[in-house]
Amino acid sequence: MARPTPLSGFPEWLPDGRMVEQHVLDVLRRTFELHGFAGIETRAVEPLDQLLRKGETSKEVYVLSRLQEDAANPDRGGRLGLHFDLTVPFARYVLENAGHLAFPFRRYQIQKVWRGERPQDGRFREFVQADIDVVAAGDLPYHYEVELPLVMADALGALQEIGLPPVRILVNNRKVAEGFYRGLGLTDVDAVLRGIDKLDKIGGPAVAELLVAEAGATPEQAQACLELASVQGDDESVVDAVRAVAARHGAEHTLLDEGLDELGALVRAAAQRAPGVVVADLKIARGLDYYTGSVYETVLVGHEQLGSICSGGRYDTLASDGATTYPGVGLSIGVSRLVSRLLGAGLVRATRSVPSAVLVAVTDEADRSRSDAVATALRSRGIPVEVAPSAAKFGKQIRHADRRGIPFVWFLGQPGGDEGDQVKDIRSGEQVPADAASWAPPADDLWPRVVPAEA
Amino acid sequence: MARPTPLSGFPEWLPDGRMVEQHVLDVLRRTFELHGFAGIETRAVEPLDQLLRKGETSKEVYVLSRLQEDAANPDRGGRLGLHFDLTVPFARYVLENAGHLAFPFRRYQIQKVWRGERPQDGRFREFVQADIDVVAAGDLPYHYEVELPLVMADALGALQEIGLPPVRILVNNRKVAEGFYRGLGLTDVDAVLRGIDKLDKIGGPAVAELLVAEAGATPEQAQACLELASVQGDDESVVDAVRAVAARHGAEHTLLDEGLDELGALVRAAAQRAPGVVVADLKIARGLDYYTGSVYETVLVGHEQLGSICSGGRYDTLASDGATTYPGVGLSIGVSRLVSRLLGAGLVRATRSVPSAVLVAVTDEADRSRSDAVATALRSRGIPVEVAPSAAKFGKQIRHADRRGIPFVWFLGQPGGDEGDQVKDIRSGEQVPADAASWAPPADDLWPRVVPAEA
Repeated sequence: MARPTPLSGFPEWLPDGRMVEQHVLDVLRRTFELHGFAGIETRAVEPLDQLLRKGETSKEVYVLSRLQEDAANPDRGGRLGLHFDLTVPFARYVLENAGHLAFPFRRYQIQKVWRGERPQDGRFREFVQADIDVVAAGDLPYHYEVELPLVMADALGALQEIGLPPVRILVNNRKVAEGFYRGLGLTDVDAVLRGIDKLDKIGGPAVAELLVAEAGATPEQAQACLELASVQGDDESVVDAVRAVAARHGAEHTLLDEGLDELGALVRAAAQRAPGVVVADLKIARGLDYYTGSVYETVLVGHEQLGSICSGGRYDTLASDGATTYPGVGLSIGVSRLVSRLLGAGLVRATRSVPSAVLVAVTDEADRSRSDAVATALRSRGIPVEVAPSAAKFGKQIRHADRRGIPFVWFLGQPGGDEGDQVKDIRSGEQVPADAASWAPPADDLWPRVVPAEA
Repeated sequence: MARPTPLSGFPEWLPDGRMVEQHVLDVLRRTFELHGFAGIETRAVEPLDQLLRKGETSKEVYVLSRLQEDAANPDRGGRLGLHFDLTVPFARYVLENAGHLAFPFRRYQIQKVWRGERPQDGRFREFVQADIDVVAAGDLPYHYEVELPLVMADALGALQEIGLPPVRILVNNRKVAEGFYRGLGLTDVDAVLRGIDKLDKIGGPAVAELLVAEAGATPEQAQACLELASVQGDDESVVDAVRAVAARHGAEHTLLDEGLDELGALVRAAAQRAPGVVVADLKIARGLDYYTGSVYETVLVGHEQLGSICSGGRYDTLASDGATTYPGVGLSIGVSRLVSRLLGAGLVRATRSVPSAVLVAVTDEADRSRSDAVATALRSRGIPVEVAPSAAKFGKQIRHADRRGIPFVWFLGQPGGDEGDQVKDIRSGEQVPADAASWAPPADDLWPRVVPAEA
């Protein structure tokens, strides 16, 4: 077998990189659980017709077939595809299990998703998402639209300890945008939003042309939309700024008023609970047409070119079974994008590449069971340990530990002799008598830690 | 959208079931790390030609295609399939990254795998495997064949706390079987092993016929193979028992002697380190032809019909790049099979279905920020908390907690009033004054626990 090469778009990490990813996942999970979200997992596949309900994603889906599919007797469930996000499967899970769930249902879900896209920097074909959503049966109060981005602020804030740059969560409200557009007299709201969504990519003048060409706007209306999109701020003054733009262009609509009340409440609460993190940014449109209230995007400060690492919003109809409608609000972290930047930019590192804090040396292969017994004693007290692969010269055994970053090597005393066991810190060279029933490494050495790269 | 129905073979759990699965995964991960195994993940897909190198698995593979595949410009890497185990991807990972890994390399890997098989009880199309392997560049000492099943004994033993029945790890050695067969004069060793592998399914007489028909055995040779397969025991007496069978049939071979030395060493070490868990069982054949030394299967005592929940063995050539050969030894736990039995047989339960230990009540919607502040204070000290969805009557808020199994409800005092905050244990009804800066629930209530069902 020749040496294989990586598949573009399918990232894999070496053990120390995986340690960083695992740590990120652990921090997210713990934060979500502290906020009362229950974890679920859904299967990797969904019926293809469910995945294709939103036409624009169709080209991204990986379709499954069995190699020796029986054409006369195909799978009853129809064709299956790999999920491309965790929202479609979650909506299906809610409908399927509604009778067994207590609403409002708070869930987190951390899984891989797949998209058959052309891979680019930070854009993968297989990647991990970490989602939180609250879904209700019937009505979902607005306060969840305030709470959910603050949970993400907490989670991403907890990662600053290991070297993640600060984040900025950009929020907008679809009601503000829609109310404003309708107040101007524009009726094809989706077309306007699609145009505004391209602002960062193609710039204001090109967007204005697009709005005239595709959303039926006059040049003046297009200009008004661009003015709205330029409003930004992290306190309630943004509400006044939007009102000023609206007044200037004579845009009035109850939806605009409703949206501004909501956006104001969000900015006010965020300023109190996560100062400086949440910024109202009226150009955030999120191309997806199912959002109906707040929408969110998140950038890493200093890495804005990476794109959003945590996005989401409110949808009045996450799912519906005819009798009941399930509105929801949620956000999704692009974990692979985040981790690949953390590793690629050299922002974080693991203090070692193996879990072991101690390598127990082997004096003589016939005597390996004594080394095993020491390892068992240390493990029973929660210390990660491995035993040397062979009874090589001690220098070689120490190098074996050193190559892996294992900080301590344990040497056995003579059975029945005067000398007891000793443990050596191979960084300092210090070697001291030790008893496997009581010795422990310093807390910082017990497990590998994930730390800022310069630490 | 009509109410969707589950897909056969793709198990999903409700939140409390997922809690059980997550706990099992946490225990496995911790045990593997205590033994110095580093975690890795590999991508879900491999090139189809790699997956099909072993012909017999071909029918199980799910093949991927992109919905709008460009026929004129197909993926350069060729067709991709979902991995059906974690060994094939690990072998590829080792070759791909050999220059960056320190050998012997100890890794664990916990991921989903997919097989397009007909679903049955305990047999899924998507399931989680938890693998450990040690792989060397060049030589892999025999002692790892002793160590690895004992790591699994430790991991599965740790799960007995939550109600997993005891396990029995059945071991054999391919050298013993092969040496014995060759000593008898049989040369088609794989055919004999395939026959013996069917013993539990079709019984001795049918296997004897099969050995005569397909392995070129005389009825006497077939009888000798069945006698060998009947030897079982958890101490070194099994070695004597095998020697007795061999002597009776005049079977001599250096491979037999070598294998018996190894098997004896394994049983001896296991009797010391995990008494009663490891049993030598000479009928264990493992149909796969790449095992070259020890082979392992594991049954849950009292649930033998479920089949093996943890299997593996030694392979002299896990991978090879021409210049270097990488031998390995490993075992794989079928986590989904295990968890589905734990849940299906009602052996375990989670103490509640949400992480939250406390529901903070809301007195008045206008005053929600005070409840949020209490929640933040409790979370900052590591207590999982959620805030009530609405300022409903307290009776309704308590029922909300009760339905989720949240043990405590927090009531805010009047701002500036004489009465401070109070917390109620809704199981006992006891309500006491409490301060969010210092109160904590009893340790048993802090997080949901996974316990034996009768506890």
